[in-house]
Amino acid sequence: MPQSIVTLDLEGVLTPEIWIAIAERTGIPALRRTTRDEPDYDVLMRGRLQLLAEHGLKLPDLQAVIGTLHPLPGALDFLRELRRLSPVIILSDTFEQFAQPLLQQLEWPTLLCHRLVVEQDRVVNYQLRIPEQKQRAVAALKLLNYRVIAGGDSYNDTAMLTEAHVGFLFRAPENVRREFPQFQAVDSYPDFLEHLRREIAGA
Amino acid sequence: MPQSIVTLDLEGVLTPEIWIAIAERTGIPALRRTTRDEPDYDVLMRGRLQLLAEHGLKLPDLQAVIGTLHPLPGALDFLRELRRLSPVIILSDTFEQFAQPLLQQLEWPTLLCHRLVVEQDRVVNYQLRIPEQKQRAVAALKLLNYRVIAGGDSYNDTAMLTEAHVGFLFRAPENVRREFPQFQAVDSYPDFLEHLRREIAGA
Repeated sequence: MPQSIVTLDLEGVLTPEIWIAIAERTGIPALRRTTRDEPDYDVLMRGRLQLLAEHGLKLPDLQAVIGTLHPLPGALDFLRELRRLSPVIILSDTFEQFAQPLLQQLEWPTLLCHRLVVEQDRVVNYQLRIPEQKQRAVAALKLLNYRVIAGGDSYNDTAMLTEAHVGFLFRAPENVRREFPQFQAVDSYPDFLEHLRREIAGA
Repeated sequence: MPQSIVTLDLEGVLTPEIWIAIAERTGIPALRRTTRDEPDYDVLMRGRLQLLAEHGLKLPDLQAVIGTLHPLPGALDFLRELRRLSPVIILSDTFEQFAQPLLQQLEWPTLLCHRLVVEQDRVVNYQLRIPEQKQRAVAALKLLNYRVIAGGDSYNDTAMLTEAHVGFLFRAPENVRREFPQFQAVDSYPDFLEHLRREIAGA
């Protein structure tokens, strides 16, 4: 009977999409694009950095916006319950410099993510810790003899869900559900928790 | 500039030694032996299971003792501060069934550990998730391109400390310090936090 571990995406699953919030508060609609819209992460990020430069937006401006965000309603209770049942690791393609205020509100779950390259408050580049970090983290946990149960909502999660023993789509948009019918799709935290509970107990 | 992650032992570093507490409350001094005394973990565990069987001690008896324990004084504040600075993963050779009440008091850090095999409340065996799990977890985090900073106090931590980029001994007994002079030894949480902070910032 193997031991289980749960890996979860952050944005869209536990928190709002950070770049969408930035787009709304700054009035730059092109920043709304996420991995839900553009599967190539580097294309997406180059575009974002270009827009920030054009509009003169610096890291403290972005952090001020993020500081006003909160976890999705119900996310904290969901995560509290889940952490009693199983170890949990958050796998996100966000950046250390963005995640802090949201992690605090989520009571500091362990997050593996990336880092922005910042010079004099300007975001000059981004640094992927490794490519395909979500999938590779799941593969690493499997080598540590964990049964991995994963949950995500968008294109950049599907490699992680495929690598995991069991994968769930949480509030995924219609196009992602349609392309990945092999993953059970759930839409509420109580449902999601119940599915996870069953998987953890059955493991 | 690589991203950092911190891995910590649990017992002796953040919490009391669980088996020593069990020895004291049950009046079975032979249960006091830990990995500090017996480097061969299987020899140690076989002996413990034998003693439990001889004395008719079942899992709920052990859990009742563990339920009275608290993190070491200062451990929670130390861990709270540390979790703001870096992701933290607890690597322990304890068991899921033991760790719960202590994890709760530590605000649910992510713990990778093992599991007891229990039949009708009797602890009939133990199941190592994998051998050398601490060292292997550090190796896996290195493959995920983390700079790993590790802290532990006893023999079963030294492979983890060696595998990590930087290793610290926290309140280690004299024999462990003497055998492993390559690891910086620290004895207070403020000192330990300061060392960790420097390593995380310098990374």
